Amino acid sequence: MSTASPAPYETSVGVTDAMRRALAASDRVHGSTSPNPAVGCVVLDRAGTVVGTGATAPPGGPHAERTALAAAGERAVGGTAVVTLEPCNHHGRTPPCVDALLDAGIVRVHAAVTDPNPIAAGGLERLRAAGVDVTLGTLADEVARGPLRGWLHRQRTGRPHVTWKVASTLDGRVAAADGTSRWITGPQARGEVHDLRRRMDAIVAGTGTVLADDPALTARHPDGTLFADQPLRVVVGLRDVPPGARLHTDGAAPTLHLRTRDPAEVLKDPAMRDVVDVLLEGGPILAGAFVAAGVVDRVLVHLAPALLGEGPQALGAAGVGTIADIVRLQVDEVRRVGDDVVIDARPASGQVW
Amino acid sequence: MSTASPAPYETSVGVTDAMRRALAASDRVHGSTSPNPAVGCVVLDRAGTVVGTGATAPPGGPHAERTALAAAGERAVGGTAVVTLEPCNHHGRTPPCVDALLDAGIVRVHAAVTDPNPIAAGGLERLRAAGVDVTLGTLADEVARGPLRGWLHRQRTGRPHVTWKVASTLDGRVAAADGTSRWITGPQARGEVHDLRRRMDAIVAGTGTVLADDPALTARHPDGTLFADQPLRVVVGLRDVPPGARLHTDGAAPTLHLRTRDPAEVLKDPAMRDVVDVLLEGGPILAGAFVAAGVVDRVLVHLAPALLGEGPQALGAAGVGTIADIVRLQVDEVRRVGDDVVIDARPASGQVW
Repeated sequence: MSTASPAPYETSVGVTDAMRRALAASDRVHGSTSPNPAVGCVVLDRAGTVVGTGATAPPGGPHAERTALAAAGERAVGGTAVVTLEPCNHHGRTPPCVDALLDAGIVRVHAAVTDPNPIAAGGLERLRAAGVDVTLGTLADEVARGPLRGWLHRQRTGRPHVTWKVASTLDGRVAAADGTSRWITGPQARGEVHDLRRRMDAIVAGTGTVLADDPALTARHPDGTLFADQPLRVVVGLRDVPPGARLHTDGAAPTLHLRTRDPAEVLKDPAMRDVVDVLLEGGPILAGAFVAAGVVDRVLVHLAPALLGEGPQALGAAGVGTIADIVRLQVDEVRRVGDDVVIDARPASGQVW
Repeated sequence: MSTASPAPYETSVGVTDAMRRALAASDRVHGSTSPNPAVGCVVLDRAGTVVGTGATAPPGGPHAERTALAAAGERAVGGTAVVTLEPCNHHGRTPPCVDALLDAGIVRVHAAVTDPNPIAAGGLERLRAAGVDVTLGTLADEVARGPLRGWLHRQRTGRPHVTWKVASTLDGRVAAADGTSRWITGPQARGEVHDLRRRMDAIVAGTGTVLADDPALTARHPDGTLFADQPLRVVVGLRDVPPGARLHTDGAAPTLHLRTRDPAEVLKDPAMRDVVDVLLEGGPILAGAFVAAGVVDRVLVHLAPALLGEGPQALGAAGVGTIADIVRLQVDEVRRVGDDVVIDARPASGQVW
């Protein structure tokens, strides 16, 4: 007899798989939802079949739960909602998702993480009070390091989450002695940077980098076409940027010039009000200022297996004068991407969620 | 019935396992055999049982094959010799190993790699001519990247194999702005450096590093005691080193001061005649000169997840003025060691064996 028998814990496996689908759905909209969180939701019917998937729409549009429930229709009755974030319980631009789940007849909810902001939280509590079977923590770590990372950070700290990304040689150079830098890393690593940019709400670069490299600061597919979602382009520094600069002429995303050198001022600028995820892309002086100010939450180093020996450094002065004051990080992941090595780290004291 | 049955290809698996043992035996003597290769040999009896293991003794002592055969005694008759390098066929300070294998009644020989020097080679050919069943290539890649790497390089190129090892922050700094550098990497990574040093024949450092850091340039166990084998300590540069420097007062290994800045002169110095493996440990100026001269064969970067922003660079001027002249490497391995990341690379054009 070769008939397959059901695996034990089929329900549990089903929920984990559903959470992975919810996470994938949220990842696809990451970068288009701020200031709202990029949430994913999967609705399973009584039998555990996926009957609806949803992700947060741009601000003003439906949340993930409503989209998934709409797709499920009557099949949601007696079913399970698997959602990356605790469903909201407050009236914002849309009515509470908790109401939608109860109205649809959902009897079980699996959420990965809760809202760290106590004012906004309470969704799971209200579901429990209404008799829904609530489970918290499925794939919590993966979800919290994923599309929700910046949003959770902002809920907790009140400021955007800053990723400093730098591409350097093994000896820490970002350009040769004559300033040329195209290209240090390979096409796969550069492709990853574009995938990262489209998930971000703002890209920050210093005037020095803009004047030296004339970057477009856009998020592009490998074929050069623009992603649908483009981050705000923020130039920081006191020098003027010529009107003909590529970031003014290439791509349609708005550009902002903040005439300051203070990272705190950048992050608190009114134009950054809805920004959750910031990608800091250089140069060394600006990156040093952000590190010195303690507002770098993730360090993503793309290391090319190459040596230059001279040329500008990855990081400028960061307020460290002696070894005892070294800025310690912890490595979350080391990956090989094409010929390059990517090191994903964060401050040694930094929590992800 | 739960009696284990013999795995298929038991002989083949046995040979691979024997080669691993031979490799491990050779690794234990790596650093004590130059100018001879650090070879390992395992003798199996007719039934495939290990009856003898040997590794190259210091110069003038027996080669790996003789030690393994002596341990096997009569049990070698009709047996197999598994050896990391093609057995020698010439009279040096000891008679040819090929004779010893034939005299002992060995009927099968598995060798990982051949001697790239045609004058020294011919051992396998003579064994075959004598009716021995010879197989070449078992674990060839592992063996060639292991203890024999430097020796094979030297046979092929006529000069020692140079490993440049550097410990830096993610932003490529080897010390803070005030020169302090203890410690950038963690104890596990530093322990690996000592394990590496004891395998080397010479450690090379510039006078700048010696004057700034006063290193002992010794190979030590984690408890601080010295390994039995210590490399020659070579200081390169025009400045004087005070007689009270640690490398003169700490450890018993000889010290050599070469008053030159030319890497070619260093590698060709008569005192380096028997040196196979060189570890270049800084500083940035000397490392830059070796990279510029094209005589760095392996780059071992110990990256601490930390940032400094200021302070001396891992690598000084290496003759690269523009991005088109960047020194490309290829990554052989990326490993996490304690909290640090080790990147093991070599020139993109460089062959290991």
